[in-house]
Order: sequence, then structure tokens, then C-alpha cells
Amino acid sequence: MQTVALKLITIVAEPVLEERLVAALHRLGARGHTVSAVHGAGSRGMRASDPPGEGVRIETVVSEAVSEQILEHVASAYFPNYAVIAFVTEVAVVRGEKYL
Amino acid sequence: MQTVALKLITIVAEPVLEERLVAALHRLGARGHTVSAVHGAGSRGMRASDPPGEGVRIETVVSEAVSEQILEHVASAYFPNYAVIAFVTEVAVVRGEKYL
Amino acid sequence: MQTVALKLITIVAEPVLEERLVAALHRLGARGHTVSAVHGAGSRGMRASDPPGEGVRIETVVSEAVSEQILEHVASAYFPNYAVIAFVTEVAVVRGEKYL
Repeated sequence: MQTVALKLITIVAEPVLEERLVAALHRLGARGHTVSAVHGAGSRGMRASDPPGEGVRIETVVSEAVSEQILEHVASAYFPNYAVIAFVTEVAVVRGEKYL
Repeated sequence: MQTVALKLITIVAEPVLEERLVAALHRLGARGHTVSAVHGAGSRGMRASDPPGEGVRIETVVSEAVSEQILEHVASAYFPNYAVIAFVTEVAVVRGEKYL
Repeated sequence: MQTVALKLITIVAEPVLEERLVAALHRLGARGHTVSAVHGAGSRGMRASDPPGEGVRIETVVSEAVSEQILEHVASAYFPNYAVIAFVTEVAVVRGEKYL
């Protein structure tokens, strides 16, 4: 099966940030995204406060160039003030040329 | 810790496809799967229509050979008519020999 | 964007194990975690019984050293008696030095 090497970006944040983050992803070049509900705790990636809380996991499959744009934006616009974790996974996407 | 290199297949599709996709995974050799609810939007991976909708993320850890079978099936049976995204991630699985 | 190479550990288990597993993750060095609800079936990774059941997907981003500790613990404390799947994915984490 021929696949295209792309980047899966995963962002975990407080639910209140979902709308803004999703808008930013699409503005920066993402063609789609999924959001799922999580709960958890931690110094980052969920609320900074100690008690466990609700969160959203936002995922998008993008090109390396779009990935860079999104990570820069998340780091500069959210990391200073919010408990957010963002990471990138290498994925091989079926018919991935649609995402380039 | 000794682990086995395997493939994590992630498929995001409309909820109506869950039953058929899960049956196909197992028919093609998957030993297990998980499904989680997502919402989102995009040209593929969720409903093709513009408004955001509900989806399911179906995941299974399989051998490379089974991975190929599943990706070929998803591409030929679903991509022509449905908004589906499918991608593969390399994972290192504890006691992964159970999945070979 | 500068990122740090870290390990994403994913554990899928019966919901009854969530509290104990999360406590173990943090005791072994994890700085945070997320939990999401899944359903599914399989010889491992969900209930061992044949009918599909509910599960939890527990995820944490950790250093390689902490990853080893967690995998050893899960393998020795849970694999003999529970349907659990645990796997590791390589991820590139924004401001990942927080997790080291």
C-alpha cells in the first residue's frame, strides 16, 4: 500500500480553548481535525491546578510545513498562559496526497 | 523492556461505518480493536459535508502483513464513497508477540 | 520548531484498573496523563472475555528512563491477570524539556 509520510499533531488543552485552537489549525493550513474528550492531570497538557480536570485532545494530520506553523503558533500563543501539551508523531497516511 | 515493533492503524470515519469496519479488521487478521468517539471536520476523516460532525476513531495494533491487508481494504472499499482517513504509526508493543 | 524526542505510552485496560494504573504512572515518574473512554474487543487491550466491553485509554508522555519503569511495571503487575495492552510511540514534544 502506498502511503504518504505526514505529521500527526496532538494537542491536549482545556476545553475552553477548543474553538480557538481549531480555528487556528485551519487558518494555518490543516484540512481537517478531530476532537475527543479526555480527563487527566499534570503539570501541562491539562489544567495547571492540581486536581484532575477535563480536557480535549485535538488531532490533525498535516504536512511538515503546516506542522511547523501550528507548533510555532501553539508555543507562542498558548504556552505562556495555558496548560497545553503539543507533540508530533510520524504517520504514514493512505491517499495522503490529499493533505499536502 | 523487550518490545515488538508493530503497526498501530488509526481509522477515523462516520459512526455508521463502525460495525462494518470493525468486522473487516477482524476478518483481515486483527486480534483486537478499540473505538472512541470524536467530533471534528475536514475534507476527509470526518463527514465530507462542511458542518462539523460526529465520528469514530477505530484503532488496532497489527503485524505489517495484516496492516497491508487492512489498508488495501479500507482504500478500495471506503475511500471512493466515504469520508475516511486511515494512517499507520510505528509502535513498540509490550509482549507484542501476541499480535503476530 | 525545536522539539524534544520523548515517549508516548499508551495503555488500554479495563476501567476498574484506571485509578491504580494512573497512580503507578505518577509514582514511576510521569508528570501528567490523560484518560479517554473507549470500547472494543480483543484478546488483550480490552476484556479477555469475548463480548465487546468498555475500556480506558491512558496516555502519558515521558522520558525513555521513565518509560522503561512504567512498561516493566505494567508487564509484571498487570499482564499475568488482566487484559491490558501497552505500547510506546516516539513523539517530538514542543517544550519537551518539561517532561525530562
